[in-house]
Amino acid sequence: MSDDVASKTAKTAKLYFDGVETEKPYELWMSFDRGLARDLSMFITGQMYAREVLTHPVRQLVAVASLTVLAKTEELELHLRAALNVGCQPRELAEAIFQTAVYGGVPAMNQGLQILRKVLKDQDLWPLGEAE
Amino acid sequence: MSDDVASKTAKTAKLYFDGVETEKPYELWMSFDRGLARDLSMFITGQMYAREVLTHPVRQLVAVASLTVLAKTEELELHLRAALNVGCQPRELAEAIFQTAVYGGVPAMNQGLQILRKVLKDQDLWPLGEAE
Amino acid sequence: MSDDVASKTAKTAKLYFDGVETEKPYELWMSFDRGLARDLSMFITGQMYAREVLTHPVRQLVAVASLTVLAKTEELELHLRAALNVGCQPRELAEAIFQTAVYGGVPAMNQGLQILRKVLKDQDLWPLGEAE
Amino acid sequence: MSDDVASKTAKTAKLYFDGVETEKPYELWMSFDRGLARDLSMFITGQMYAREVLTHPVRQLVAVASLTVLAKTEELELHLRAALNVGCQPRELAEAIFQTAVYGGVPAMNQGLQILRKVLKDQDLWPLGEAE
Amino acid sequence: MSDDVASKTAKTAKLYFDGVETEKPYELWMSFDRGLARDLSMFITGQMYAREVLTHPVRQLVAVASLTVLAKTEELELHLRAALNVGCQPRELAEAIFQTAVYGGVPAMNQGLQILRKVLKDQDLWPLGEAE
Amino acid sequence: MSDDVASKTAKTAKLYFDGVETEKPYELWMSFDRGLARDLSMFITGQMYAREVLTHPVRQLVAVASLTVLAKTEELELHLRAALNVGCQPRELAEAIFQTAVYGGVPAMNQGLQILRKVLKDQDLWPLGEAE
Repeated sequence: MSDDVASKTAKTAKLYFDGVETEKPYELWMSFDRGLARDLSMFITGQMYAREVLTHPVRQLVAVASLTVLAKTEELELHLRAALNVGCQPRELAEAIFQTAVYGGVPAMNQGLQILRKVLKDQDLWPLGEAE
Repeated sequence: MSDDVASKTAKTAKLYFDGVETEKPYELWMSFDRGLARDLSMFITGQMYAREVLTHPVRQLVAVASLTVLAKTEELELHLRAALNVGCQPRELAEAIFQTAVYGGVPAMNQGLQILRKVLKDQDLWPLGEAE
Repeated sequence: MSDDVASKTAKTAKLYFDGVETEKPYELWMSFDRGLARDLSMFITGQMYAREVLTHPVRQLVAVASLTVLAKTEELELHLRAALNVGCQPRELAEAIFQTAVYGGVPAMNQGLQILRKVLKDQDLWPLGEAE
Repeated sequence: MSDDVASKTAKTAKLYFDGVETEKPYELWMSFDRGLARDLSMFITGQMYAREVLTHPVRQLVAVASLTVLAKTEELELHLRAALNVGCQPRELAEAIFQTAVYGGVPAMNQGLQILRKVLKDQDLWPLGEAE
Repeated sequence: MSDDVASKTAKTAKLYFDGVETEKPYELWMSFDRGLARDLSMFITGQMYAREVLTHPVRQLVAVASLTVLAKTEELELHLRAALNVGCQPRELAEAIFQTAVYGGVPAMNQGLQILRKVLKDQDLWPLGEAE
Repeated sequence: MSDDVASKTAKTAKLYFDGVETEKPYELWMSFDRGLARDLSMFITGQMYAREVLTHPVRQLVAVASLTVLAKTEELELHLRAALNVGCQPRELAEAIFQTAVYGGVPAMNQGLQILRKVLKDQDLWPLGEAE
């Protein structure tokens, strides 16, 4: 089973973080402790993100909402890229971030929107087309 | 347009909170200030929740994730009820809450699961059936 | 000067917490460590709250806003009582709590309003009269 | 009434943010969604900030306290500028930030003071004169 | 290795939570999803808490400090019990909680002290003897 | 006694912050208000940090854990330097930060590790040697 988890970890990591060029959390952990880095990565990516109860786009919206209200800007950027990789639409990401203002306040929403705009610009997806 | 917002507010509020018997936020606000209560309610329910960029079930998952990591237990309970009202499955709600542990830590996740279990018991949806 | 601080501490504590019947923070600290309790109390009440750059009502609004967004419900209740003791009006307290929704989100505001309503009921100040 | 709200929004926005040269939240929202930007702005600036239960200087102190403990540095800078625009004194702003250390801890206070110092330097109000 | 992790998980869980009668997090997770519960438990208890870079008493102080500033009262109670189980002294626990006031504010410290007092009373360790 | 506190403050400040070249919190406070700066410093450094219930290395681990989960990066850097000054080992600091992921989530842990790596690089303690 451990091999199975390792393979799910690699496959899901590739799906999410393909094209991400900044240091990934796994690389940061590895620089400190190889064993713990592997345990953390296998748990989060292989045993949690690879589960199929939620689709990948919905799972990314859960990540985006959580990271926006927690103001975790670096991970938010990473998961916005993952979200685009798995097929979330730019307007859906903006909408989820707008909605969080009700729960976590307007300043956290503003930071989220700024990061989304930066990610969309990096990927030539800005400005957004007309809302349908 | 104001009439339109009022009608969207009423319709969306009914969709989400049908069957909720505890005091709703709108009633709390009304007990302090009728004008501000109406403005808040029209903005949140009529101008935000009634938008159609996200489906209602996805919008509720955004709410559930945000409220779990923020440990806002009372609103979380309300939105778990709304989530069931708009068709979210109990296992999807549990999965979204489990996933937030990565972003907001395990204790916040635990509180979220406890509240979900309480809501599911109230609605005779507990214990969960076998995961497929 | 130490006597001066002790006297300011006692005077300010009386001004704020007169009539409060629940355990005050100072009593909690004393049950653990008398020296540290005295140092903490002299610093907070004698050296901070006794300063005169802000009036006491404004200082209490600063406390109420901070404690609302931080969801520190027990201290919020204490400072709402202190606020009434130093002359804040119920509608001013409600307004400050309403305003914090923009910064800290609606659920934190809701908790704040619930506690304010409880305090006002305890003091026979509920329901509020008509807004002017 | 909608015209009335729009006019209050414009008037209050001018009062608060006159001279602010960085991107204002309204402009950020507009870059994503014109309708939602207008709804948010009318609600926050026209229906909340334009109310008269608290004076503008007191309202800004409520904002400053909340944003300091929440460590929302960008909005804090914006509201410190608004606070000076509506007549708050530099020493009052420092005092409110110092006080929040009791509720939200010293590191949040330190960030608040650093931003206040930056704003005061930008406006040639630094160093502060002797405390009276 | 999987057997090894399982055995470390069981051993560490027994060391920490012996005598705890409330529902443990593992039992909560199991009620939702047996596979994920096992993965979470093996990661946290078997792969993290069983590591030997920090002694068990120091590890519990890390938990107590973190949970106090995060106001996670239920887990804090659990880890205060674990801390006593692995040999932390009541005065050390109080001291760590007092110290966190500098970082996370006084209200979070107060909640922490209240929970510590409750745990110490439950175990007939209250009142504390004279500080040496 | 006031002299005694002043001398403990100076001694503990030297022990912790020797070699720190960025602006220290005390200097920030002094730039605003000399009296309050002295009161704050004497309370925190002289009356809290100088206490002997916890050893200095354990006290720094309490600080590091708290500041990591609160994401107070500037103070975290300061206390990581203080931790090295009083004898904490780099691997102990990393371990405490890794552990906090359980309580405060992975993104806060990641920020903590990044800052630790920066501090270790500044002091030529990077890369870490093999874990024993």
